[in-house]
Amino acid sequence: MENLGENLARSDLSDHHDDHAFDAQARDAVYRAIFTRRDVRGQFLPDAIPDEQLARVLNAAHHAPSVGFMQPWDFVLVRAPETKARVHGLFEKAHAEAAEMFDDERREIYRKLKLEGIREAPVTLCVACDRDRAGPVVIGRTHQREMDLFSSVCAVQNLWLAARAEGLGVGWVSIVDAEALKECLGIPERLTLIAYLCIGRVSRFFDKPELESAGWRRRLPLTDLVHEEDWGGSCGEALGTALGDQQDRIAAGAFGG
Amino acid sequence: MENLGENLARSDLSDHHDDHAFDAQARDAVYRAIFTRRDVRGQFLPDAIPDEQLARVLNAAHHAPSVGFMQPWDFVLVRAPETKARVHGLFEKAHAEAAEMFDDERREIYRKLKLEGIREAPVTLCVACDRDRAGPVVIGRTHQREMDLFSSVCAVQNLWLAARAEGLGVGWVSIVDAEALKECLGIPERLTLIAYLCIGRVSRFFDKPELESAGWRRRLPLTDLVHEEDWGGSCGEALGTALGDQQDRIAAGAFGG
Repeated sequence: MENLGENLARSDLSDHHDDHAFDAQARDAVYRAIFTRRDVRGQFLPDAIPDEQLARVLNAAHHAPSVGFMQPWDFVLVRAPETKARVHGLFEKAHAEAAEMFDDERREIYRKLKLEGIREAPVTLCVACDRDRAGPVVIGRTHQREMDLFSSVCAVQNLWLAARAEGLGVGWVSIVDAEALKECLGIPERLTLIAYLCIGRVSRFFDKPELESAGWRRRLPLTDLVHEEDWGGSCGEALGTALGDQQDRIAAGAFGG
Repeated sequence: MENLGENLARSDLSDHHDDHAFDAQARDAVYRAIFTRRDVRGQFLPDAIPDEQLARVLNAAHHAPSVGFMQPWDFVLVRAPETKARVHGLFEKAHAEAAEMFDDERREIYRKLKLEGIREAPVTLCVACDRDRAGPVVIGRTHQREMDLFSSVCAVQNLWLAARAEGLGVGWVSIVDAEALKECLGIPERLTLIAYLCIGRVSRFFDKPELESAGWRRRLPLTDLVHEEDWGGSCGEALGTALGDQQDRIAAGAFGG
C-alpha cells in the first residue's frame, strides 16, 4: 500500500506551487502509527518511561482539536502501586458485574479475556474533562453539548498514536465505575471521566486487535459503512474498489513498518 | 525538539532486542501531523480528492480503536452542491441562534469569525454512530455507556491526522442541529450524529489555531493540567520542565516540517 495512489497524487500536485502533503515516507509513518496501534492489555514491560518521552505524548494530547479552543482536558498521572491496586479493585468489581450481563457461551469467553494491564503498566493516566473551563457559552458547543467530551477523546487518540510511534503501548480501561474512579483519584465531582489509560513499553504489539483474533467480532468491510450523497446511496464502484483493496493490504500488514 | 530525549531513549533501548519505537524521522512525522493539524474553515481549494486518497483517510478512520471491536461508525460522503447548500442553511440557522447567546462584546467577534467551509470544501463527510451494531451488551461499554460514541470520535481524529499527512485540511462543523442534519441526509433517527467534516486541499495551514490567533482564548500551560498521583498532586519539577520546554518549542514551530 506504500505506493498506492502515489502516481495519482503526484500528477495531481504538479499544478500547485505550495503543496502541504507530507512526502511518501513521512505520510506512511503516520499511517503506520494508525494501522499498527493496538489496545494493549497483557504485554506491558515494567520499564519506567523517561520524563521527556512522557512529556511528548502528553503534549500530543494537549494539541488535540478542542471546541472553542477550550482545551477542557485534565491529566492525572498515576504510578503508585497502591493507587493502581485500588483502581484494579474497581475494575474487578465492574468486570464481575459485566460478566453476568453476557449469555452463557459468551460469558466463558469474556472471563478468559485479559482486558486491562493496570498493575503491570508503569504509568496509568486518567483523562478527565472540565466542562466549565471556558464558561457556559462556548463556540461550537452551543448546539452539540457533547463537543467538549469529544475534544477530550481526540486528546486520547493523539496520545495513543504518539505513544505508538514511541514504541509505547496504551490500553483504555473502560470497565470501571466512573464516579468511583474519580473518587479514588480525588477528581472533583463536576468533572467528567473520559478515559483511564495504561501506558508502557511492551514485549510486542499484536498484528490484529485481540477481539478480532479471538473470534469475538470480525473487521467489517469498510465499503458497507460508506454511503454516498445520503444514507440511501451506496458506495460508488471506484471508491469501493480502492477502499476494499487498501483494507485487504492493511490486514496483510502492509504498514507493519 | 527533534532530538529531545533522543539520547535518553536510545540508552534506554539498549537492553531490549525487540524495540517497537519508530526511528526518529518516522516518529517526528507523526508529531508533525499532530502539531500542524488545524481546523480549516476558510482555506479550502475546489480540487477534487482522488478516490485512492479519500479511501486512505477513510481506512484510517476505520482502523480507530473501538469498544468491544464494535466499529460503530458510518460515513456519509456528501459532494453534491445542493446537499451542501442545505447543510449550510442548517449551519446558518444554528449560527444565528448561537450569536444571541454571547454577550455584546463577544458577539461582534463571534459574528466575524469564519466557522465553516461547507460549500467550498469539495467533500464533506458526516460521521454517525450506530449504537446497536453489536447488540445490547458490548465488552467495555457495560459501565461507560458513551464508549461507542467515543470510539467514533477516535475515528474522526484518525481521519484528521491522516488528512494532514495527505495535505488535506479538515474542519469540524458542530454549529448545527444534529437531528435536522440527520434528517437532511436521510440518516435513521436511531443513529447518533458524531461529526460533520469539511475536507479538501488547502491554500495554507495556519501556524496556530485561529481562535488563538484571534485572541479568543490562549493556549493553556500544560503543566497546569497535569496532576501527579492524584488530583491534589501538582506536576513534578522534572516532568514540568520537559512539558514546558517542549510546549514552547511546538509553539515556535519546531514541528513545522
